[in-house]
Order: sequence, then C-alpha cells, then structure tokens
Amino acid sequence: MRHLTRELWMNTPGRRQIVSLQAEVEGLVRESGVQEGLVLVNAMHITASVFINDDEPGLHQDYKRWLEQLAPYDPSPSRYQHNRTGEDNGDAHHKRQVMGREVVVAITGGQLDFGPWEQIFYGEFDGRRRKRALVKIIGD
Amino acid sequence: MRHLTRELWMNTPGRRQIVSLQAEVEGLVRESGVQEGLVLVNAMHITASVFINDDEPGLHQDYKRWLEQLAPYDPSPSRYQHNRTGEDNGDAHHKRQVMGREVVVAITGGQLDFGPWEQIFYGEFDGRRRKRALVKIIGD
Amino acid sequence: MRHLTRELWMNTPGRRQIVSLQAEVEGLVRESGVQEGLVLVNAMHITASVFINDDEPGLHQDYKRWLEQLAPYDPSPSRYQHNRTGEDNGDAHHKRQVMGREVVVAITGGQLDFGPWEQIFYGEFDGRRRKRALVKIIGD
Repeated sequence: MRHLTRELWMNTPGRRQIVSLQAEVEGLVRESGVQEGLVLVNAMHITASVFINDDEPGLHQDYKRWLEQLAPYDPSPSRYQHNRTGEDNGDAHHKRQVMGREVVVAITGGQLDFGPWEQIFYGEFDGRRRKRALVKIIGD
Repeated sequence: MRHLTRELWMNTPGRRQIVSLQAEVEGLVRESGVQEGLVLVNAMHITASVFINDDEPGLHQDYKRWLEQLAPYDPSPSRYQHNRTGEDNGDAHHKRQVMGREVVVAITGGQLDFGPWEQIFYGEFDGRRRKRALVKIIGD
Repeated sequence: MRHLTRELWMNTPGRRQIVSLQAEVEGLVRESGVQEGLVLVNAMHITASVFINDDEPGLHQDYKRWLEQLAPYDPSPSRYQHNRTGEDNGDAHHKRQVMGREVVVAITGGQLDFGPWEQIFYGEFDGRRRKRALVKIIGD
C-alpha cells in the first residue's frame, strides 16, 4: 500500500474565509503515485470545515450568511456557554458541524474521481491566523 | 489490495427525492470480494447527499420539510446570490451540506458492518434528470 | 494490509449524552499495529452521531441546546410524521444529521494525526439504553 501525508498551511486573515484546496490536493494525488485508493482531507482546527461544493463566489457568500443565521456570532456567554472560557468563538464550533470536518474522495486511474462541479474547499469560521488542513492518501 | 469502482445512475424525476442505494451497494461489496476494508459512497452532484438513516417513508417526508425550513427554495437572487448565475437551486446547495456528501462504511467478513437500522440513501434536492452516486471499495 | 474491527459499547442513561471515545480509539490504533492508514469511527444507531470537536463541557451543553432549536423534541406526529410509527424520536434522527454519523481520521507514524484540540465524541440523542460505536482500522 502506498501512502502520502501532507499538512497544507494557509493564511486566513479574515474571521470567515473559504479557500480552495483543489489544485493542491490534485497535485498531491499525482505525487503519491496512487492509482486506486482514497484521499482524506480534513480541517486540523475545530472551528473549521473541509467541504466539497461549487467554486462560485455568490454561493460562498450565501453559505456565510446562512451559517450566521443558524449559529450567530455572539461573544457573550449568554448564547454560548463555551464563551465562558474566555473564547469568543462558540459560533464557529457550531458552523463547523453544519459544514463538516472532512471529505473522503475516491482516487481512480490516478485522479480524483469527481462529478462535474465538485471542488474541495477549506472553510474557516475563526481565522485571523495561519491554519492548516491534513491530506492523507492511501492505496495502490 | 482489492478495489472496485462503480457509478450508480438513477432517475430522479422530482426536484426532491430520496432513493435507496442499499441493495446495490451490498451487491457491489459481494462482487468486490473484499472481506476487510472500507466502502465510500458519495453523491457526484453538489446539490445532493448520500446519507445513512432509517428506511421509513414518514422520516423521509420529515427530512424534506425540515430542510425546506432550514434552506427554503427561492429562485430569486435576493435570498441566494448563487441564483444570480441563472440557476434556481441555491437552496439545494445548502440542503446538501446539512445531509452530507458521502458515507464511509466498514466492510467486515465480506459484508457492510451495519447497526440494526442503518440503510444507505441518495438524497437529491435539484433533480428532474438522471443523477449518479459513486461507490469505491478498497480492502483485502 | 492490517485491519482491526471493534464495537465500543457504552451506557447512555440520559436521552441526550455526549461521551468521549478518544482514549479507546487511541488504544485501538496502538493495538492494531497500523503505522500508516485510516480509522473510521461511526455510530451504529441512526439517532446518534460520532463527531470531532473540543472536550469542553460548556460547548457540549451549547450543542444540546442548539440542536433542540434546530430539531425540537416533539413526540406528536404533527411535527414528525416518523412518530406515527409509535416512536417518539423523530427529532433525534434530525439532530444526528446535523452532527454527522461518522469520522475518518488519518493514522500517521502509528498515531491519530490530529490538530491541537481534536477529540472524538459519541453524541446520543435517543439514549436510555446501551449503545455502540464501530471502530474500523485499515493500513500498513
């Protein structure tokens, strides 16, 4: 079994940001030499998501607005007990659960086995510092 | 390592439909000959989900109604900027994130290693044409 | 390819409970001898989740309250048709979809390849009896 492990570091100067990981993951699949297998891509932070959807800026704005409705930012501990710890990111821990921690993608014939519009993104909900995603590839 | 890859095509004449993939995935696990491994089942469309839950029609109706509350259908671009692109399916991209893109299931002793009520479904939120899910099996 | 399969049984006397699986999964990764691979941890019940987030009791209370807002407990069949079957757990099938069924985690150098605060939890939304999660490890 072949395997490849890589941390992808990125800058997320804003609190909420969506960053494409598509080209980097495609490159790592090639580098791994795996022809048939699986690739796991996950956020290494618990206020962030890795998800697959459309590379369309309007949709990414929609996601940010919708997540703000489902789990509004509120630094007080009245809405999020988590903020009693001195954090102000209780909302981000909730947004991440809606969007998911990770994706698992098939590798077939040495390539990501994707439908027509699938693209991999990192979604950060408590940024303003360097963050990272993990890529793990296994297969033959 | 053994592997098997298969696209499952289906008709989804309605906009919102939930289709069982259980029998087909069980058949592919047998066909693969894998005794110990993992199977990935994912939607190949970004307005659709693959999820595991109960095979109970009332629950499936409940999901559709609940998702309509969380992310209502609205073809205008006022709610979903995504619909400025000429699409009317902004809602479906949100519904898919709640229900998830994919499932990963253990294969043990040549069978899906499931609890008592687990069943695999494809959930389409912008149907009215042929759609597909991907099955990728790896293991020994 | 090495593999290990284990069911983790637990008591969940309350209807809603969050239980750490972290130490048990770490122990199974060691026991498996897998140095490079993947571990799948999934709920074997369709009213429960396995998720990764912070080991912080305030946050766990926040999740319970938030899920109650998104999918309130209501034993009547007026809100959840599923409860026409004689069940009263329609809400739990919805809460589980928000939090997810499973996680897939990389194993690197014989250990869970985690960011600084990642911890694995079982979240039960219709407990009051013994429940179980499945751990499946594959790799070299």
